[in-house]
Amino acid sequence: MKTEILYGIHPVCEALAAGRRKFHEIYVSDGKTNTRIDHLIELAKSADIPVKHLNRKKLQPIAGTDTHQGVAAKVFPYPLLSLSQIISDQGDSGKFQFYLLIDNIVDPHNLGALLRTALCAGITGVVIPKDRSAEPSPTVSKSSAGALEHINLARVVNMANAIKDLKKNNVWIIGLDKNGDRSIYENDFNENIAIVVGGEESGIRPLIRRHCDFLSFIPQTGAVSSLNASVAGGVAMYEAYRQRHC
Amino acid sequence: MKTEILYGIHPVCEALAAGRRKFHEIYVSDGKTNTRIDHLIELAKSADIPVKHLNRKKLQPIAGTDTHQGVAAKVFPYPLLSLSQIISDQGDSGKFQFYLLIDNIVDPHNLGALLRTALCAGITGVVIPKDRSAEPSPTVSKSSAGALEHINLARVVNMANAIKDLKKNNVWIIGLDKNGDRSIYENDFNENIAIVVGGEESGIRPLIRRHCDFLSFIPQTGAVSSLNASVAGGVAMYEAYRQRHC
Repeated sequence: MKTEILYGIHPVCEALAAGRRKFHEIYVSDGKTNTRIDHLIELAKSADIPVKHLNRKKLQPIAGTDTHQGVAAKVFPYPLLSLSQIISDQGDSGKFQFYLLIDNIVDPHNLGALLRTALCAGITGVVIPKDRSAEPSPTVSKSSAGALEHINLARVVNMANAIKDLKKNNVWIIGLDKNGDRSIYENDFNENIAIVVGGEESGIRPLIRRHCDFLSFIPQTGAVSSLNASVAGGVAMYEAYRQRHC
Repeated sequence: MKTEILYGIHPVCEALAAGRRKFHEIYVSDGKTNTRIDHLIELAKSADIPVKHLNRKKLQPIAGTDTHQGVAAKVFPYPLLSLSQIISDQGDSGKFQFYLLIDNIVDPHNLGALLRTALCAGITGVVIPKDRSAEPSPTVSKSSAGALEHINLARVVNMANAIKDLKKNNVWIIGLDKNGDRSIYENDFNENIAIVVGGEESGIRPLIRRHCDFLSFIPQTGAVSSLNASVAGGVAMYEAYRQRHC
């Protein structure tokens, strides 16, 4: 079975807490102690996962980066779900369904930031395309502060078909687009909804845009024409949160 | 006079459009043409700024990075304002004052993302501390998609004193803090306000936190404990925008 190396305190801790990945072993840098690492070692012990203490210099080549914060772990690959699993997971929740579709985001840091916000805002299923997208890699887990380890994520070959399947489940598809015809504050988010966030440069791809029920913009003042993709997604997800909870 | 090198299409274009920095000369990579670069060359010509066409390989050492998108410019340093200039600039606007105080943010990409959102959300003055903060560097201009070139930014020696000065001008100081006692959706942003955003790891420094009138949190579901600083700032600034405009 293929393995990969998670690195950083949050990704390793959250993968342990989520309990969705099988762990081979955990590596902790010698002499590195703080309460978060102590907590991590306790979690590992109670799950019978071996913890190896290593010289810090030996951790760098294992993690493949300097930003490991003294912790890495050899784990099974990320547990992707299918779209139907994501949809059926929501079936009995008694609440409105709330999805995030991430189209055309290739920067792992932007993908990580979106997943982190998605988990905080109560998104219960995220869909990314197989091509033209950052993958759910250890870098994304790090950028998401470990949110990747908890969130329900599906990777689909054809995003347009995924949208059709969601529509069959009575989900409204709202694309974020600076040329949209209504502001996000004019949307009613108290429905089953999926928010579509597009890429850093060119936004949602035209084919996907055509499949949206509405295109919605975030109002903007000033000279610079558009928000960063992960901030735009965050603002829209939290407007939905506000309408649903406040 | 000290100079610095801006790089990337947005920073150079927006600095030209804003007209706040003196330009020495602009460098464009040979054979690099697109409508945005053509527009940039036109702006430069109408402002009598020399444009040098260079081999792409020669642009890299000038820009100090590969991410220059074929464009760089030798310019005067960033035009920082004083706090009193920022405050007096708002005096006659007839609207509520709207500031962003950025405490303890050391990552230039986070600072850039916050400035980009601030300009979009209608913030009219940003304050950063001299120490323990990313500086308004060309990297920040790039990360802000050029928003740095337009926004009013003051860098102060003592952030606590800056808060006192703002309070004297009838500004309410709202700190974003996950242990705050009210959610951002319970705040009334139809006042003169300053939103304080804290650092990536530890949030707002305790001394600064004590000077806030309110501490306010962004409600969160799920396992991961806090939003990325630039997303949290974006969500709060846009809740203020919504209350003021929608």
